[in-house]
Amino acid sequence: MQATHQVVVIGGGFGGLNVTRKLRRAPVEVTLVDRRNFHLFQPLLYQVATGGLSPANIAAPLRSVFRKQANAEVLLGEVVEIDAATRQVILRDGKIPYDTLVVATGVSHQYFGHDEWEPFAPGLKSIENATAIRGRVLTAFEEAERESDPARIRAWLTFVIVGGGATGVELAGTLCELARETLRGNFRRINPADAEVILIEATDRVLPAFVPQLSAKAQASLEKLGTQVRLNNRVTNLQADFVTVQSGPTNAVQTETIPARTVLWAAGVQASPLGKAVAKATGAQLDRAGRVIVQPDCTVPGHPEIFIIGDLANFTGSDGKPLPGVAQPAIQEGRYVAKLIAARLRGQTLPPFKYRDLGSLATIGRHAAVADIGPFKISGWLAWWIWLVIHLMNIVQHQSRILVLLQWGWTYFTRNRAARLITQVPQQTDQ
Amino acid sequence: MQATHQVVVIGGGFGGLNVTRKLRRAPVEVTLVDRRNFHLFQPLLYQVATGGLSPANIAAPLRSVFRKQANAEVLLGEVVEIDAATRQVILRDGKIPYDTLVVATGVSHQYFGHDEWEPFAPGLKSIENATAIRGRVLTAFEEAERESDPARIRAWLTFVIVGGGATGVELAGTLCELARETLRGNFRRINPADAEVILIEATDRVLPAFVPQLSAKAQASLEKLGTQVRLNNRVTNLQADFVTVQSGPTNAVQTETIPARTVLWAAGVQASPLGKAVAKATGAQLDRAGRVIVQPDCTVPGHPEIFIIGDLANFTGSDGKPLPGVAQPAIQEGRYVAKLIAARLRGQTLPPFKYRDLGSLATIGRHAAVADIGPFKISGWLAWWIWLVIHLMNIVQHQSRILVLLQWGWTYFTRNRAARLITQVPQQTDQ
Repeated sequence: MQATHQVVVIGGGFGGLNVTRKLRRAPVEVTLVDRRNFHLFQPLLYQVATGGLSPANIAAPLRSVFRKQANAEVLLGEVVEIDAATRQVILRDGKIPYDTLVVATGVSHQYFGHDEWEPFAPGLKSIENATAIRGRVLTAFEEAERESDPARIRAWLTFVIVGGGATGVELAGTLCELARETLRGNFRRINPADAEVILIEATDRVLPAFVPQLSAKAQASLEKLGTQVRLNNRVTNLQADFVTVQSGPTNAVQTETIPARTVLWAAGVQASPLGKAVAKATGAQLDRAGRVIVQPDCTVPGHPEIFIIGDLANFTGSDGKPLPGVAQPAIQEGRYVAKLIAARLRGQTLPPFKYRDLGSLATIGRHAAVADIGPFKISGWLAWWIWLVIHLMNIVQHQSRILVLLQWGWTYFTRNRAARLITQVPQQTDQ
Repeated sequence: MQATHQVVVIGGGFGGLNVTRKLRRAPVEVTLVDRRNFHLFQPLLYQVATGGLSPANIAAPLRSVFRKQANAEVLLGEVVEIDAATRQVILRDGKIPYDTLVVATGVSHQYFGHDEWEPFAPGLKSIENATAIRGRVLTAFEEAERESDPARIRAWLTFVIVGGGATGVELAGTLCELARETLRGNFRRINPADAEVILIEATDRVLPAFVPQLSAKAQASLEKLGTQVRLNNRVTNLQADFVTVQSGPTNAVQTETIPARTVLWAAGVQASPLGKAVAKATGAQLDRAGRVIVQPDCTVPGHPEIFIIGDLANFTGSDGKPLPGVAQPAIQEGRYVAKLIAARLRGQTLPPFKYRDLGSLATIGRHAAVADIGPFKISGWLAWWIWLVIHLMNIVQHQSRILVLLQWGWTYFTRNRAARLITQVPQQTDQ
């Protein structure tokens, strides 16, 4: 009797989750390896960072997700290398043999060669990032309340978000609502509504992945909420208490230093280190962000048994550009790869992967959103409802759907956000 | 015009929260100082530690709680000293003058002179404690799944809880349910139901604060859930992978070493360092745990303007023993002190504080609880319902009440626990 075909999936994000699920009826054994014990619904991470939701609302324990899938097992471990010759995944403390390997470890943020900025401008990729940002934002209001010098108060109440993509826009909109609505009446010396939220974008419009008319709508919504949107601005320096930006053409550069104690980073992604491990093991090419350039069937050249999917893959779309780093490509690639693995085991094959663009969505506060769905360019409350339904339906755990809906309803009507906790303080003894 | 009477309250637990609230119509200005920005509903902390609830469900932002109380302000700060002569509270970075001072900073856990045990046996007093314990417990099952040596698997699946009071009993019961119900089918190599939960208690019964018949009921319920209850056992040593216990009379001591990778500490309390600060400033006496011995009106001898309430106070009850370190004495003392402050401002006084024992409650898993309410000694489902209603009604935020009820309902019917996240891993980059 032949041994069962072993599929190893590295990474439990949208890509890894979908390939594993879709293999549930295939004659394979799947091992899903992740360093974390949960799948994270990243599109709502900014709501944890702004105190609207709790981490558990947007995280589903992987073991719980695959409890009933008999041919899948979850393994908590850290992959350090891939041995393509002997077909083994090398963990920090062990090895797993594979017949087919799917790498889906995604991206983290990058600082364009300025890693020294990271301590001052945290990005938003993990639960820990989100609770740390939540702590920083709330602490800034606390510090402002205790400060007497007006210039220092202003710096504590200035929040700069670098990057005008979906994450930056969503953070900016939510921070405005936090300052102007949620925290109203919470302080005695400062008025939290005096907070200034500044969104810095290097190109000439926010949401560059959307059509220009929706970028304009999004910008108008942000400005209505009180965000200062600065286009064509590049960050050239930042420290604990200021951000320096440049604007204007190269022959007439203008430099400005903004005193700000809270800077959030929503620009630039960098592939997970496993991209390099794949390149080393297979000779695959990486793009500038470290993503693996894949074939039309999501494999690595010369290694039909190694698939790269999701944000870690640079897959050339029908427009000649790489697919965007959002959930849909990862989900669709995951499903395609699972079908291809099953087809191969039946001695068949499949045509190349074809990405079906289901559209883009971004929300700006309580009512506004923009939706770019094929021929439909929608903004305002209808886009907001579409955003809400699609996000709720895609949360993995049923319980979380109910809890998230309930908390959104609560936040909507009371403008309160219950998860406004400053946690992980260095000193943890009780006062 | 005379300046308004300044009340400074240190600590936003049950005591501090109630004294501040109850002063809302008094002609005073209240400053509530805490190192954390939230009130923590400690009686449900064990549910965060076992993945049933999220931190935000049992924490209420203090600013939110006092948003509408015009004569109260919240200040995030760390008190390091009290200057009783000039009537000032000394913060790490500032001073606050007071006319009346209320100190309510509670207790943390202590290791009976073995502080070196702390890294191996975390206690359960803060949100960070709870999420760290949650991570340890879940990681132990993950390690067991990856281990091949049977003795090591056993050590990973052995959970020792030191201390058979309410917290220890609640932790033990919930851990049993986690292992036998919640995690069922989640693993492929180990059976989580093989986990051994051992509760170690130094006296001759669990829940020593309850009447003996309820201690016996609680023990029976624990044993039915699968907890091994060891009475008259003293911990004499513990390290990362074992606990040593002694039992038997002094002339026939028996020593046993239990291999266990997870030890949780639910024994022994130690007063907050502010107890010492009060003693230094006023000459007040401390008891062995560092609690301030207070007068019948909750003041410090010779300082009618300084009150100590809650767990930090050693208040002699009608039975000649100090009041227990639970929520009720703190709440009642807080209300009494607020009334006394208001009375004094009217030129009146009040009779000494009298504690009204409303009874004790402890829960053991999904159905069982014990309630010791005056003449009523209740166990089983009725006690469980009483426990549920009382705890729900006492959660400060309305939203949290609904969310907690919903999550309890979910956990009850599906035996799932959604907040099973291992967070705060040292390495936070994505894989």
